Amino acid sequence: VGDALPVIEGALREASARVPGGVVVVTGGLGPTLDDRTRDAVAAHFRVPLELDPEILRALEARALARGLPGLAETNRRIALVPNGATKLPNPVGTAPGLELPLGAGVLAVLPGVPREMQAIFDAHLAPRLSLHFEGVVEPMAQFRVMTAGIVESQLAQELEAVVSEVDGIHIAYRPSLEGVEVRISVDPSEVPAGVLASVLLENAVQRALPILAPWRVDGGEEGAFAGAPANGSELAGALLRALHTRGLRVATAESCTGGRVAQKLTSVPGSSRTVLGGVVAYANSVKVEGLGVDPALIEAHGAVSEPVAAAMAEGASRLTGAEVAVGITGIAGPSGGTPEKPVGTVCFGYRLPDGSVVTERKFLPGGRDEIRIRATAHALFRLLRLVGSDGNGAPGAPGSTPSTLPRGGV
Amino acid sequence: VGDALPVIEGALREASARVPGGVVVVTGGLGPTLDDRTRDAVAAHFRVPLELDPEILRALEARALARGLPGLAETNRRIALVPNGATKLPNPVGTAPGLELPLGAGVLAVLPGVPREMQAIFDAHLAPRLSLHFEGVVEPMAQFRVMTAGIVESQLAQELEAVVSEVDGIHIAYRPSLEGVEVRISVDPSEVPAGVLASVLLENAVQRALPILAPWRVDGGEEGAFAGAPANGSELAGALLRALHTRGLRVATAESCTGGRVAQKLTSVPGSSRTVLGGVVAYANSVKVEGLGVDPALIEAHGAVSEPVAAAMAEGASRLTGAEVAVGITGIAGPSGGTPEKPVGTVCFGYRLPDGSVVTERKFLPGGRDEIRIRATAHALFRLLRLVGSDGNGAPGAPGSTPSTLPRGGV
Repeated sequence: VGDALPVIEGALREASARVPGGVVVVTGGLGPTLDDRTRDAVAAHFRVPLELDPEILRALEARALARGLPGLAETNRRIALVPNGATKLPNPVGTAPGLELPLGAGVLAVLPGVPREMQAIFDAHLAPRLSLHFEGVVEPMAQFRVMTAGIVESQLAQELEAVVSEVDGIHIAYRPSLEGVEVRISVDPSEVPAGVLASVLLENAVQRALPILAPWRVDGGEEGAFAGAPANGSELAGALLRALHTRGLRVATAESCTGGRVAQKLTSVPGSSRTVLGGVVAYANSVKVEGLGVDPALIEAHGAVSEPVAAAMAEGASRLTGAEVAVGITGIAGPSGGTPEKPVGTVCFGYRLPDGSVVTERKFLPGGRDEIRIRATAHALFRLLRLVGSDGNGAPGAPGSTPSTLPRGGV
Repeated sequence: VGDALPVIEGALREASARVPGGVVVVTGGLGPTLDDRTRDAVAAHFRVPLELDPEILRALEARALARGLPGLAETNRRIALVPNGATKLPNPVGTAPGLELPLGAGVLAVLPGVPREMQAIFDAHLAPRLSLHFEGVVEPMAQFRVMTAGIVESQLAQELEAVVSEVDGIHIAYRPSLEGVEVRISVDPSEVPAGVLASVLLENAVQRALPILAPWRVDGGEEGAFAGAPANGSELAGALLRALHTRGLRVATAESCTGGRVAQKLTSVPGSSRTVLGGVVAYANSVKVEGLGVDPALIEAHGAVSEPVAAAMAEGASRLTGAEVAVGITGIAGPSGGTPEKPVGTVCFGYRLPDGSVVTERKFLPGGRDEIRIRATAHALFRLLRLVGSDGNGAPGAPGSTPSTLPRGGV
């Protein structure tokens, strides 16, 4: 929906008419600037005036003060305007509250467009409100979510569809990214025959799916440290940290083409300082030599992008930090720098393991610069997880190599 | 729109009816799995059969081969199904093509849901197609886009709205993130009085806005190296690299709480290896000492999160790599580790400048762990840009500190 007032009003009218007695949720347009027109549209739709809310105004003034600003910017006062009759939904992470208004027998909820604010207000206020509104009217969907890595969507689908059939009323949805595939198994209670419990159907399907998913699973399937790693794209890093922490191991990084991305992913997990010691971003060859102690003759003989250099980088990171486990990554992310022998996308990995041995590999990763860096990071984390997680046997992705149990509250 | 066939069909019907002779774009549901039902819905909507396209099939088989798979997964064959009568829109970055079908006098375009594939097909095929379809019917919007950092949305809005008035038919839109605020100034030709050129109106508004935006601007306002830094959230890093490269300077990083994020942002810019030497992720104190040569007595006396330690980290990174410019960051990103004197969100920065001097600062950054790390990274890049970009005078954010000109093709 565009920013023009009549367009927003039209969308409000249309949505209200479409779900009489239902819930309409609007996001965005509650900010301080002239293109933020949602509150005007809501006021016009209900034919009520906008009123300056003293409570919001005080919060805005306090925030301006805390930021060392001379006073509240005039434009920010708009945030304090509330359509008469609206209930405020407090914002746990910002100053613009959400708004709720009765819409016939239904509800109109207005949330800020900034994703983390929208999410926070939804979780804290709107979700409980919706549960209440729909209680006894619709049964919530029963759902089970698993994060996987190291396997492509189509392969996963082929294996899963062999054991979990759609005809049971089960839905399997896949959300692929460069870092892995999220799998959601769900049952829509409205599609389940009378007398059958959706939760029982789901439990049944999940029990059949888990052995298929186990080798690729990287979310909270294990208990203990880092089990609460948030679903912010760091599931893989969380899984590796769990595996390392369980075994009393610490990790270090030596990165060239990924430029700090592996370290950044690992340290994005709360509590990672117990397990991550640090690392070196060795972008220039001189830093590979000075910072990681890589023998210049090795670079001369094999090139900076080579398995021997990746191995020496991992060993250097381990030596520098004292970490038992380390990863070295050197590659060509492009757009320039490729050669016929080592085209853009060539990435070499070295994994220093607790027994002092080093495993190396060379991969070709498709895509542009960003994509190659993301894929290289995810690959390194997944491979290290399998090397460490399977007690040193190191069969990456071998079925059954990670024991997996139903997580608490997973269903 | 949900994944159920009748729901997708209903949405297709409704959209077609809403814009007779117009363009309907559908995204998602073209993947290989059972929840990908868009092509079935399109075939049902047009009452045409799905046919296996031999060209797509060959491409899929070639990709499976290149990946070292034994053969094409059965599920992947679904990707090759095309509704009879559809034109394929080749996918420059994947194997599932987009589809185009005549929709009365209009067009139905079906694109994959994976964002980078959708974008690539849109840019390569659909955008030119739409230009053709709408030529002479609607005039494109005239738009100017600027990326800013170091200033909040409301302050920017207040200053801009003082010189660019909405009554001229000018629209100003803001997209704030933790890293900065994107500002778009646009003119909708349909709102411009007869005889007035939208492009002239825009040029006029942009000329008034530029002096306000100049101190905060971080996009391609300068010419030369890195001017083409992509709009992938690395504008700030690109601006810093441009400023450094112009002055013949190289940069290194020493990161604790940001865990490699600054290095990762800098190296995400194509060509960054000319300017970025590397750095150390000194998460553990031992790595601050061993990797960066920070005096343990300094940590003992002031704590790891302190301005003297941040300064010593920056100096250490410069010494290790030979970079003339370096940044040191140490802070408490949480969720634990805060104290009354140094609560979660306390971050200390050290900036090593080309003359060998070091500037330090201590900031309190609001938000959760991810947010603090993102804010700290953006702050460091912006502050370093101002310290380096203003020829060492170092008035951060002082109006006029970066000369800014209209970029080529900016309007």
